[in-house]
Formats: sequence, structure tokens, C-alpha cells
Amino acid sequence: MNNFLGIDIGGTNVVYGIVSEEFGLNYQSSLKTKTIQTANELADVIFNDLKSNYKGNIDGIGIGAPSVNCKTQQIEFAPNLKWGEIIPLKEIFETKFKKEVTLLNDANAAAIGERYFGDAKDLDNFVVVTLGTGIGLGIYINGQLYTGDNGMAGELGHLIIHRDGRECGCGNLGCLETYVGKKGIIKTAKEKLEFSSGGSYLNTISPSQITPLEIFKAAKKEDPVALEVVDIIAKDLGYALAHLVNLLDIENIYLFGGVAKSGNMFRKRTEKYMRIYTLPNIHDKVKLKISDLNEKHGAVLGAAAAIKEKMAIVD
Amino acid sequence: MNNFLGIDIGGTNVVYGIVSEEFGLNYQSSLKTKTIQTANELADVIFNDLKSNYKGNIDGIGIGAPSVNCKTQQIEFAPNLKWGEIIPLKEIFETKFKKEVTLLNDANAAAIGERYFGDAKDLDNFVVVTLGTGIGLGIYINGQLYTGDNGMAGELGHLIIHRDGRECGCGNLGCLETYVGKKGIIKTAKEKLEFSSGGSYLNTISPSQITPLEIFKAAKKEDPVALEVVDIIAKDLGYALAHLVNLLDIENIYLFGGVAKSGNMFRKRTEKYMRIYTLPNIHDKVKLKISDLNEKHGAVLGAAAAIKEKMAIVD
Repeated sequence: MNNFLGIDIGGTNVVYGIVSEEFGLNYQSSLKTKTIQTANELADVIFNDLKSNYKGNIDGIGIGAPSVNCKTQQIEFAPNLKWGEIIPLKEIFETKFKKEVTLLNDANAAAIGERYFGDAKDLDNFVVVTLGTGIGLGIYINGQLYTGDNGMAGELGHLIIHRDGRECGCGNLGCLETYVGKKGIIKTAKEKLEFSSGGSYLNTISPSQITPLEIFKAAKKEDPVALEVVDIIAKDLGYALAHLVNLLDIENIYLFGGVAKSGNMFRKRTEKYMRIYTLPNIHDKVKLKISDLNEKHGAVLGAAAAIKEKMAIVD
Repeated sequence: MNNFLGIDIGGTNVVYGIVSEEFGLNYQSSLKTKTIQTANELADVIFNDLKSNYKGNIDGIGIGAPSVNCKTQQIEFAPNLKWGEIIPLKEIFETKFKKEVTLLNDANAAAIGERYFGDAKDLDNFVVVTLGTGIGLGIYINGQLYTGDNGMAGELGHLIIHRDGRECGCGNLGCLETYVGKKGIIKTAKEKLEFSSGGSYLNTISPSQITPLEIFKAAKKEDPVALEVVDIIAKDLGYALAHLVNLLDIENIYLFGGVAKSGNMFRKRTEKYMRIYTLPNIHDKVKLKISDLNEKHGAVLGAAAAIKEKMAIVD
């Protein structure tokens, strides 16, 4: 039986696993992205881990990562990765593993996951929004992954939602990511705490403990500052998604990743704002859903499905 | 030989013509949109004109119009047309002419025109932006017109570019159309003239004579107020187009319509701003071009091509 190595590279974690032809997960592990200095080191670490801990075969490798140019099969100018401006990841992994490698945008890996294993099995048009350190978008149009003229489609995180807003790692100002990405959420919370008159749970923990997860937890308990922050994020994300709906008239939008899993309160608010900013005659039709793919392994499975599809051994 | 009636309904003019199978224009005419009170009247007026002045056959009818839902074949909630909220245009024209009718978004008619007769003959992915009373967008993806889940894709004019900005006919605030549509351009010019210290040509003509055409003419002569207005419009349109590029990574964007024909100065400025607001690693690749389709008949030809295609007598 064929087995595939699926890797999901995020700004915070690298998650990987061995996925069988029937999409069972035979082995899984993860590491902190910032502990790795170069892409070569990443290939070495994963190779050595598998050599020690996994005894089966590997027939191909699918890698999802941010800022992937799927035409060149490189990571190009990823603001949240510090392994160089141009990272020839396919080449590096092929050299190390001597197996066929396909590199795809992390959001595309999630979209393939949604199409193969999730709610979108029967949908020709849908998008998956990945919420994490960065913000990505995987687009299915007419039943096929759409990647654009340069393999760079789906840069939702770099939609400028506040002209002359916050500085982004990409060099521009006001990108969605600087508000709804992990660091952006924390920054907004800290700004709000500075001007709050106390009475927030978030004021009782050390600043380094303020994470999106803590903020969402506090919001669920009706913490006023946390609620305000969640509302600001929902408004910004809803505004950005309205652009997508106005341009593409896509009815099914899935949220994927840590922030998405924070629950229905955030989804509902985001959907409300998305509809406010969408042209009235289509705004009732669009549905914002939380992906029911396993957060940790959805993109790993998607990456594995991508290499399986590429090697033309799809059922 | 088959002949088709192509009709392009705009907020200001309705242009129509008889187009041969080989896309020669056998008859052409136009009328002012505001002289027509209902869609039935429009069908009557065109029918009677053709009865008197055109002696050949009509084998099918293609109609391009704003706010078309191509699934229902109706015009729905068109902010710039005063013929009712839901206008069953296909039905009305089929009843009057007893011929097969296809109704498509005006921007889609322009995009089909661009693909059949224009610069985009060999492009699988491109968009056409129609600039006029309203602002539309026709999208080709993988060599096919993309119309979305509800037949409403391409609502570029209703992208909200200034939250809490100008009131739009659609019910929202800050839509692109309220700044870069015909009325929006005039409004901006009047606002700027109010606060200018004189010295503008536009101050020497009566307010009712201030049109986009006059503003662009004055800008070409380096009129300071006109130049400022053109720069504001270019910035807003460039900002909206950057969203499109960030989301879809489409390299070829065509401008079509009156404002587009105002020349290279506007195109260049819009392209500059579009690139500023686009993610740096793709912004050099995107090209903003002025459509070389005949402004008056491009959408008429496109509408005729659409009905020809639908009746499956394409070469």
C-alpha cells in the first residue's frame, strides 16, 4: 500500500504525518517553527525523526506552506517564515528524501482537505479561509483548485482593509493579517487593555499569556474587553470576506484553524458583518461555516491528498 | 445567414444593433435610458424601430444589462435602472420578438466581446472592468465566463472601499461606484471645486456641464482641480482592483467604457495605485490595459456573441 508524508508548515507549528492511500494517519508529529533555522534543517529533522520512529514506506510527499508559488514550487517572500526570501522547498525535500514532492499553499492544502474529507465534497465552488499566524485562502472554482496566473491566488491576508493602517511584514500597510492574524489580535487586545478601566480578566494575566485562545475564552465568559476585541476582529474579517463574495458570488465559505475553532460566537459575528458589507441581493445567500476538518491534521491530510492526486493514483 | 440582435443596456444609454453571424454590424441605433419608463416599453420601442428600419431576419437576441442574475434571467435590484425591482427581461423580449433571448450582465457581455474580438483571444484568465454610470466586472477563469453560485459574480462596483462612505443606490455605504461611477466622479469634482481657490477651467462652465469627459479633458490640459479629481478616482479604482489581484492573481485587466477611453494618464495612475495596494511579490506582474474594443459596440457584439454561443452555432 502507498503511504504519503503530509507536512503542514505554519508560522507557529510544523505538523506532519504519514498518511495511507486510504487516508489513515499512520504516524504523526509536530515541532515549533521557530526552533528551525533553515529549510534544509527542517528536512533533516523530519527525515531523522521518521528514520527513528516510522518503519513503513514513503511514496511521495505533499507540503502545505504559506506564500507558496505553486508554479515555481518555492516559498517566496513569506512574511512569517525566516528561512530566506526564496525557499526552494520541493528541491530540498526531493534531495533529502529521494521521493516526488509537491508544494502547495497551506490554504490550498486545507481546501483540498475540505474537498476530500470535509463538508465540501459535493460543492463546485467554495473557499477555505485559514486563520492562524497568517491568513490564507484556498479557492475551488468549477470543481477545481484555482491558483491564478502565477500560482499566487488567495492572498486574503494581504487585502488592505485599513489604508495607511498597521505595518505588515509584506511591506504594505493595513493588511487584514495585521488585524486578524495571531499577532494582530494580540496587539488589538493590548491596545484595548491600555485604555480600559480595568475589570478585564486579561488584565489579571501577564502580557505574554495573552493569546487569541485566551481572548476568545474570556469573550465566552462575557469579559468586556475580550468581547470588544472579538467584535473588532469579526468586523475586519467580515469586511474582507464581503469583498470576496461581491467579486465571486461564492455561497460557501469555511473557516479553518485555531481562531475558527474558537466557536460559534465569532463565526456568527463575522457572518453578520460579512453580510452587512455585501451587496444586499446576494448577502442572504452566503454561508459562513466552521470547517469540521480536524484542525491539527486537516492540512496534513490535504497535502497528502495533493501528492496522491499528483501521482495519479487517486481512486 | 443568421443575424442576431445585440442590446447593451446602460444607466445612461441603450445601444443596440443587428450583428451578422460573422459579426458584421448590419444596423445600429441607440436611445437615452431615462426616456424609457418600463422594460415593456423598451421592447416595444426597439421592436418598432427595427420593424421600420431593418428589413432582414433576427434569429436570436442577446442582451447585456446591469445587475443581471444570469441564473434567473432577470434584472434584480439594479440601482441605476428605474423599471422595477425585478425585471423579467428575457421573458419580456421573448414575448415581444418570439425569438430566443439570453440575458447577461453588461460586464459579461464586454468580457465575451474582449474574448471574441479583442486582445484577450488567447487568455484563459482575464477580467474586464466596465466604467460608466455603474461599474461592472466580467471574469474569465480557465477559458470560461465565471458567473458565480447565483449568477451574480463581478459586483466590483459594490466593493465597499470607504467604510461609512457615500450612500449607494444599493443601500450600502461607501461602494466603489459612488466614487468612480459617473455620478460619483462629478460629485467629487464639485466638492473639490467648492474648496478650490478658483483658477480651474471647471469653475468657468455651468455645474450641469461638468461631466467625467470634461473633467478628463481638463486634466489633460493640467487643470489642477481636474488633475486632483483624476488622481482620487485612480486611487480608489486602483485600491479596488488590488483586492481582485490579491484574491485571484489575474495578470490581465481590461478597462472598458467612457472613462477608460479617456486615455493613458488615467490608466497609468490607476495601475500605479493598484500595484501599491497589491502584495509586493505579484504587483509587477499585473497589467492594466485599455480595451481596444469599440466603446459603443463592444458590448453589443459581446451580447450577440453570447446568444450565438447559446444557440450553439459557434464556428
